[in-house]
Amino acid sequence: MSVLDILLGKPLATSDERAEQIGTSAGIPIFGLDALSSAAYGPEAALTLLIPLGALGIAYIVPVSASIIVLLTIVYFSYRQTIAAYPGGGGSYTVASENLGTFPGLLAAAALMIDYILVVAVGISAGVGALVSAVPSLQPHTVSICLGILVVITIVNLRGLREAGIFFMLPTYLFVGTLLAAISIGTFKMVLAGGHPMPVVAPPTPPSAAVAVASLWMLLQVFSNGCTAMTGVEAVSNGVRAFRDPTVRNAQRTLTVIIGLLIVMLVGIAFLIRAYGIAATDPGRPGYQSVLSMLVAAVAGRGWFYYVTIGSVLVILSLSANTAFADFPRLCRAVAQNNFLPHSFGFRGRRLVYSEGIVVLAVLAAILLILFGGVTDRLIPLFAIGAFLAFTLSQAGMVAHWRRVRGEGATHSMIVNGLGAVATGITLVVVLVAKFTSGAWVSALLIAALVSSMLWVRGHYRAVAAETSSSAPLQIGTLGPPIVIVPIQDWGKISQRALQFALTLSPDIRAVHVATEDETNALREEWDRVVGAPLQQAGRTPPELITLPSPYRLILKPILDYVLQIEKDHPDRQIAVIVPELVEKHWYHYPLHNQRAELLKAFLLLHGSQRIVLINVPWYIEA
Amino acid sequence: MSVLDILLGKPLATSDERAEQIGTSAGIPIFGLDALSSAAYGPEAALTLLIPLGALGIAYIVPVSASIIVLLTIVYFSYRQTIAAYPGGGGSYTVASENLGTFPGLLAAAALMIDYILVVAVGISAGVGALVSAVPSLQPHTVSICLGILVVITIVNLRGLREAGIFFMLPTYLFVGTLLAAISIGTFKMVLAGGHPMPVVAPPTPPSAAVAVASLWMLLQVFSNGCTAMTGVEAVSNGVRAFRDPTVRNAQRTLTVIIGLLIVMLVGIAFLIRAYGIAATDPGRPGYQSVLSMLVAAVAGRGWFYYVTIGSVLVILSLSANTAFADFPRLCRAVAQNNFLPHSFGFRGRRLVYSEGIVVLAVLAAILLILFGGVTDRLIPLFAIGAFLAFTLSQAGMVAHWRRVRGEGATHSMIVNGLGAVATGITLVVVLVAKFTSGAWVSALLIAALVSSMLWVRGHYRAVAAETSSSAPLQIGTLGPPIVIVPIQDWGKISQRALQFALTLSPDIRAVHVATEDETNALREEWDRVVGAPLQQAGRTPPELITLPSPYRLILKPILDYVLQIEKDHPDRQIAVIVPELVEKHWYHYPLHNQRAELLKAFLLLHGSQRIVLINVPWYIEA
Repeated sequence: MSVLDILLGKPLATSDERAEQIGTSAGIPIFGLDALSSAAYGPEAALTLLIPLGALGIAYIVPVSASIIVLLTIVYFSYRQTIAAYPGGGGSYTVASENLGTFPGLLAAAALMIDYILVVAVGISAGVGALVSAVPSLQPHTVSICLGILVVITIVNLRGLREAGIFFMLPTYLFVGTLLAAISIGTFKMVLAGGHPMPVVAPPTPPSAAVAVASLWMLLQVFSNGCTAMTGVEAVSNGVRAFRDPTVRNAQRTLTVIIGLLIVMLVGIAFLIRAYGIAATDPGRPGYQSVLSMLVAAVAGRGWFYYVTIGSVLVILSLSANTAFADFPRLCRAVAQNNFLPHSFGFRGRRLVYSEGIVVLAVLAAILLILFGGVTDRLIPLFAIGAFLAFTLSQAGMVAHWRRVRGEGATHSMIVNGLGAVATGITLVVVLVAKFTSGAWVSALLIAALVSSMLWVRGHYRAVAAETSSSAPLQIGTLGPPIVIVPIQDWGKISQRALQFALTLSPDIRAVHVATEDETNALREEWDRVVGAPLQQAGRTPPELITLPSPYRLILKPILDYVLQIEKDHPDRQIAVIVPELVEKHWYHYPLHNQRAELLKAFLLLHGSQRIVLINVPWYIEA
Repeated sequence: MSVLDILLGKPLATSDERAEQIGTSAGIPIFGLDALSSAAYGPEAALTLLIPLGALGIAYIVPVSASIIVLLTIVYFSYRQTIAAYPGGGGSYTVASENLGTFPGLLAAAALMIDYILVVAVGISAGVGALVSAVPSLQPHTVSICLGILVVITIVNLRGLREAGIFFMLPTYLFVGTLLAAISIGTFKMVLAGGHPMPVVAPPTPPSAAVAVASLWMLLQVFSNGCTAMTGVEAVSNGVRAFRDPTVRNAQRTLTVIIGLLIVMLVGIAFLIRAYGIAATDPGRPGYQSVLSMLVAAVAGRGWFYYVTIGSVLVILSLSANTAFADFPRLCRAVAQNNFLPHSFGFRGRRLVYSEGIVVLAVLAAILLILFGGVTDRLIPLFAIGAFLAFTLSQAGMVAHWRRVRGEGATHSMIVNGLGAVATGITLVVVLVAKFTSGAWVSALLIAALVSSMLWVRGHYRAVAAETSSSAPLQIGTLGPPIVIVPIQDWGKISQRALQFALTLSPDIRAVHVATEDETNALREEWDRVVGAPLQQAGRTPPELITLPSPYRLILKPILDYVLQIEKDHPDRQIAVIVPELVEKHWYHYPLHNQRAELLKAFLLLHGSQRIVLINVPWYIEA
């Protein structure tokens, strides 16, 4: 237990709950890491598709970023309203299922779950990918490093939210701080130079254009890729309950800060890219350098500031997984409470977190990392579908919500959310079409599979409830004492104890003995003396000793068969099978004794019926 | 079950036992493989140590072989007597423990066990070693091939003795037949040529002598190595019970044939080595060729006969492990019957063989093969100590036996066995001294460890017997009805069933409910209606519903603590804990339900006491 205490912290009582809740400053790293770190790969993902246009392509980044920022702003106002309307946690699942119905709700939940798993895998693999391009000797250990980081994040999250917040605060603020500083310096220099600053370190010259003008299809693809900058925005709305009072205000303030910072970063990056003429380099080729790396080098040179900034980018990317760890377990719990996932997702562990969700997320992400070898490029095409499907359903749900609620401001709110739903819905269609063959179909398939499983789980829970639930008062008087069956292999204290207990239960006792090759008839000869006589003296009918043949030397099979036969012969009786068991004190005594009692219990449970009850009479040995 | 049927054959009834026993022709491959295959490595092991003498060394093979054959003859007469005196199986363990006492018996048993494990590992690795020197591309797969052969031998043995005999008959007789043919042809040519035949393929010229005369120490080492030709001789005496009637005659005849064949082969090989001037080549160097290979090539050339002979040598070496598989399980069973090993070694599996011994031998040999990389050279120094220790103890035991029996012929028999004991005892000392630093110490250590474990096992069984055995008649009347504790989390058919059963057991029932965060007081509010009222109506005292607090959200711990508290508060009562359990029909429903019932049963068994009885009331769901 002490190892667990060290790793996970001391158990917290349920009454400690409030203390474990967070404010804005801890909320930003916990719920904002995913969204904020998107700034590190969103613009680059868009620019990469513009490479065929050469230097001409750079100019497109400003309108594309502008449209993403508009979309982001719409989504921000949408989610602000959601937080206010659902202070108990307004994740896409809750909103969609409450307002649109079960199926859209499950669709949203499945979409988000897939996206969270991908966030973890992509975040970690992107961070480690950057690390190994800096230190190529680590290349062969990519997957191991990914899994190592995953384990650390998992343990931190099992320790609980507050500690997770403290752990992630420093790198988050370092990342935001250095990036904003670079943007400020760059903007200042740009203004001083009248819009055309001299780069400190010149970015590589873009190749000559292969295409002269961007087609609409190309721009849609660029936009789709850029939209990865928006993943993670829904996190706050899903985790409202984690904030301390005033819950809604704190959550909204956190969302505002996160989206505000993200917008500032996206705007700054877009303008500086154009001002410094930075084109993306091909990620698959030698000489590749990330856009942020070129940008910071152009603005501030390759001094200590460059290394601190790029270092914090690496750290933040691999830690962005943490947002998923904060949200995925809450989502699973909400779904489980509606019987669509195993109920165990709703149990809170020693540190008041939903441990099972955390562990399941870690395991699934680990499988993805191992399957894809920790390579980000292979995972990216699966990404963002889930997030936009959830956005759309959530906002469509909010529209239905306002239509039902009505009252003051409802129409205004409905328009805001309706705008969000339309905008994200169009984006979803664009992203799905643009990326379908390159990987989005995998996500679509996984979402469908997950929704089917969830429906199957609820079906099972319903069937079980139908079979077992009853609010009827207790029926009494129909049950007589059970037929008690006591297997006895030899006479000794253990058998005596079992028989003594049997005598307190019922007058109808059957002692059964399996005849094996090595044994004599000792027990049969002794039976009268040790059982028959004393019971007759006490005025009770002594139980008969029934010998079961065993041609194949099996001990348990004949007993099991006998029990099932008795059960069949007495359809109106209960059968109680007494299983005497010798319990060893030390594990190293385990192989010295046969484990027949354990096996008999397992067999009886597996093959038994409602009327067969198992009674385990343990005998503890000190030896 | 059908996969097992195919692999291991249909189960055999105990009454099929006689049919599963064997005659002489099947007995030779089963109990003689180890002894006969020794002819393939014994002479070579001796010759190798004579390399420093060059061509001069070859002459020493005849006197060394002669002394080994004398020793073998003495041992033969000794064991003939043992078989007659112990028709129930006269292994070294039985003879030594019955006549010399427990400790010498265990020493003999441990020595033989270690030797059997080594026989398996050495036999297989020698066979595979020869195979990979013929097909060098298999070299990297040495360990895998060793383990593959081990698996096949294990399965064949789990199928039972008779089938094992048939499986091994062909290669054994092919090996003996071709080797005897080679010896006959060689002897014929030698006689025709007046003692100096021309080799068909000349053996390599031995290097010039480094030493002129063999020292006594050298000759002792040569003799020690040659003694590996004697391992496996005790197998028949240990397995007498496997023979069909007349048991003793069949066993003795088998022993006679095995030793006779072995002597003929050793004599023939020794004379032909001298006649053809065959010196051993260094096994570590390029150009190495085995002595048998050079011998057969010299006698008959490298035609089809050569390849058939060498092929059968390879097969026989890797199958020589089988003797150990026939004997090791019988030995373990005999030791287990005296409580020095877990009793499970005495259970006979579906095919009437002692399955556990077979499996344990296979696992231990596999560990040796993996640890030593399947390389024979590293295993050889550990070898033969065990066999000679067992020979000596067995024959010393027979001397004591005859002294006790007396009567006609006893003195004569005593002299025969005494001679055997002295001869093998001296050999043991020679082998131990000559090989101590090169590996015999490992065997000595293992034997000591094994003997200590066996004594520890008996100690434990004795202590348990002291605690549990009793032939006293049943004590009645002291036990009142138990206090019944029924954990109830919610009201439904499962709880109803548990409570109904509790009512048939005792008037003293405590229903306990763990208060968890998510639950309301629904159960408490319902209790009177569903339990209180109907019971009062029936004239019974309704059980109180006891609510247990659970600050850390644990369900089982509060129940366990409550049970232990009740047990402490009522030192004169029995406590019965009813564990209602939902049993899933399909394994894939397993994760959908909490496994609290299983955990509670395990916890109660682990932390409980003699007075706490566990009652498992299952509820089977069809869903």
